[in-house]
Amino acid sequence: MRRVNIGLVGAGTVGGGVYQAIQRNASLMACRLGVSLRIHRVAVRDIRRARDVRIPRSLLTTDWKQLTQDPRIDIVVELMGGTSTAREVVASALRAGKPVVTANKALLSAHGESLFSIAQQRGGNLYYEASVAGGIPIIKVLREAMVGNRITRLYGIVNGTCNYILTRMKREGADFMDVLRDAQKLGYAEAEPSLDVDGHDAAHKTGILASLAHGFWVNPALIHTEGIRHITQRDIEFAGQLGYTIKLLGIVKARPGVARAANRVQVSVYPALIPNSHVLASVNDVFNAVFLRGDIVGDTLYYGRGAGQDATASSVLSDLGDAALDLLHDSRRRVPAFVAHREGGLMVPIDEAVSRYYVRLDVIDRPGVLARIAAILGRAKIGISSVIQPEVHGGGGVPLILMIHDATNAAMRRALTKISRLSVVRSRPSLIRVESFD
Amino acid sequence: MRRVNIGLVGAGTVGGGVYQAIQRNASLMACRLGVSLRIHRVAVRDIRRARDVRIPRSLLTTDWKQLTQDPRIDIVVELMGGTSTAREVVASALRAGKPVVTANKALLSAHGESLFSIAQQRGGNLYYEASVAGGIPIIKVLREAMVGNRITRLYGIVNGTCNYILTRMKREGADFMDVLRDAQKLGYAEAEPSLDVDGHDAAHKTGILASLAHGFWVNPALIHTEGIRHITQRDIEFAGQLGYTIKLLGIVKARPGVARAANRVQVSVYPALIPNSHVLASVNDVFNAVFLRGDIVGDTLYYGRGAGQDATASSVLSDLGDAALDLLHDSRRRVPAFVAHREGGLMVPIDEAVSRYYVRLDVIDRPGVLARIAAILGRAKIGISSVIQPEVHGGGGVPLILMIHDATNAAMRRALTKISRLSVVRSRPSLIRVESFD
Repeated sequence: MRRVNIGLVGAGTVGGGVYQAIQRNASLMACRLGVSLRIHRVAVRDIRRARDVRIPRSLLTTDWKQLTQDPRIDIVVELMGGTSTAREVVASALRAGKPVVTANKALLSAHGESLFSIAQQRGGNLYYEASVAGGIPIIKVLREAMVGNRITRLYGIVNGTCNYILTRMKREGADFMDVLRDAQKLGYAEAEPSLDVDGHDAAHKTGILASLAHGFWVNPALIHTEGIRHITQRDIEFAGQLGYTIKLLGIVKARPGVARAANRVQVSVYPALIPNSHVLASVNDVFNAVFLRGDIVGDTLYYGRGAGQDATASSVLSDLGDAALDLLHDSRRRVPAFVAHREGGLMVPIDEAVSRYYVRLDVIDRPGVLARIAAILGRAKIGISSVIQPEVHGGGGVPLILMIHDATNAAMRRALTKISRLSVVRSRPSLIRVESFD
Repeated sequence: MRRVNIGLVGAGTVGGGVYQAIQRNASLMACRLGVSLRIHRVAVRDIRRARDVRIPRSLLTTDWKQLTQDPRIDIVVELMGGTSTAREVVASALRAGKPVVTANKALLSAHGESLFSIAQQRGGNLYYEASVAGGIPIIKVLREAMVGNRITRLYGIVNGTCNYILTRMKREGADFMDVLRDAQKLGYAEAEPSLDVDGHDAAHKTGILASLAHGFWVNPALIHTEGIRHITQRDIEFAGQLGYTIKLLGIVKARPGVARAANRVQVSVYPALIPNSHVLASVNDVFNAVFLRGDIVGDTLYYGRGAGQDATASSVLSDLGDAALDLLHDSRRRVPAFVAHREGGLMVPIDEAVSRYYVRLDVIDRPGVLARIAAILGRAKIGISSVIQPEVHGGGGVPLILMIHDATNAAMRRALTKISRLSVVRSRPSLIRVESFD
């Protein structure tokens, strides 16, 4: 049986998980694939560091170049994280003609295009199933299973930290800050939580998915990104009363190009109200899910753990299987890391994107307030689909909830600026988009 | 660009859908794959028959041998259905060394092994993504994405007709026969519904999934199969009160073999109560879903349309993409149709399988009834986890619902036979298994 030697760069949580998974299931994979996977060398920062997963000292080195330059190593797996050394490692392995497997979405998001181009020049390939949505095989699904479909809609719950926080806020009636602190204690959120709760991590992942779906590499700086810090307990409660659940979504919506014009694609990350009856509304805790609508297949959904040692390891093993078969069959660029093509598209600026909205205002309880607000929306030709003014006991302002029909983000923003200047409006309005999946 | 010529056998609902999908998206697939797919010839039973999808007369033939023997045809797609001529078509194309794509689960279930062996001898391959769960890429997920995982549990809602009937029974409080008749009118159920409602179709699909998960070809005759005819409105209602939903499930549970012994695998199809909080409980109408638990990845779920022209076409296109890439890279047996291997297993007879149960009895309302029933279960060492005796107005018997702890099917069957002989039990007990996904 053909033996495939793996060089592992990084033996932290994910690297340790991959080492362990290969020890556990390499013989099963050999039965299935006809290839024997074996870890040949592991590059780490500090050889003496205590590790949860025991790796024989003889495999360890601090010099990653020993892996990328070693002709006995067939595949390099980059699991060190970060974007500077990791970039060197991946580029060096690709230049040496080796296939590379990575779980590093930040690296791909920042330097994907240049790494893909090195792979192409050297006839190698870069595999990155583990970079998006952990154990969910969404990269394989998009590139292979959906190869016959135009992807008209993609909605992803791709950040486990945010989903965990929103799930607990809804379940327990707790506030964002309290749940965040608890999530930090439990290890579900970082001490510096911005990457997760401000939506940046979700934007990295959504950009990768959008690129694969639409055949042009999405610049992550152009992805309109909002996090969940501004979601309050009250919003979750009012949304619930209206039959909705709030989730942080990565959103990719395509408007087909007319005649031979390019598709126009909206790529955004923001929290949104989704109907409780939709399958995505029941994706809870740290689980991830990606909902795809194809022009042939219709609606599909893929669900699983979005992060963690084992879920990530599962996707790395899947990539290793593909990379090993590609070596065995000498078909290394069978499914290239990325294919830009003429059916690609252009990004739609968020201002031009159309959606529905939930608006919560804090107003003075006085006759005529709704009329003044409705007049501003009316002049902007923005339709109100429903209004709720819950009864409130105790002094101060009262909440006023408006559900708004389809409007562009620009029109909505302008109208809201005017509304917030009204003397009867007491504080900054809360605006959350509504996704109805039609 | 390499052109790949397709010979299509069958132009009914599914064949027409595939023809249409290729017309629509072949140029997109060419961008993505670097291969141009083109329908070269279509074999049909009757050339003059009116078809929803217009196919040029010049492509049509009534002689399928013109496709399987034509050296200009690169891939044969069998979409005629049935198991006799379809078997000849597939075998003939494989003998001619051509890769074959099929959506025919009945064919695979009955003759899979012999067809796989012809493919192996001739160095060809058989692709069958569309044979299970329509547009859900479950074959690719099992064979490629989960290649590094031992599949410890698989639960599939794989028959859209049954799921549609059970969904409407629950939603509307309707009876099985009424919904079945309506489903037949709407085209969701056949005039002869046995294949669907008695679980045979689900058994074909579950057998294929179990075989791929466990590396031994499952004989469908050994799959314990129950349908949904005996599910009553009352059972759905009582299950709902207990927090459960009834779904027809294809079930594959593995008990790892001790030391070097083979795995023991339960493969069954039966309706079961599943907790409302589980994602599978919200899979409704004609949708399908497959829940997979891997020893590395944990819990994952795949959801989509399980049948219909377009969902099936999407999976055929995915297989065509793989088959075309395999031709391009001369790697036709990269992922063989089926790999039997030494980590395979043995079927567990249903009598030995352990599960929990819901039992509904119709008893005479008299003191001491529960004591007599409990005594029978107690002597059999079967534990009762809860009892509900709903209040009933009007004469006759009263329902008595027992929730039963883990017990073997044999022990439960024996106890139930004794219980049904009690004079206080008025009619045949209703027994439905409970799956708690632990």
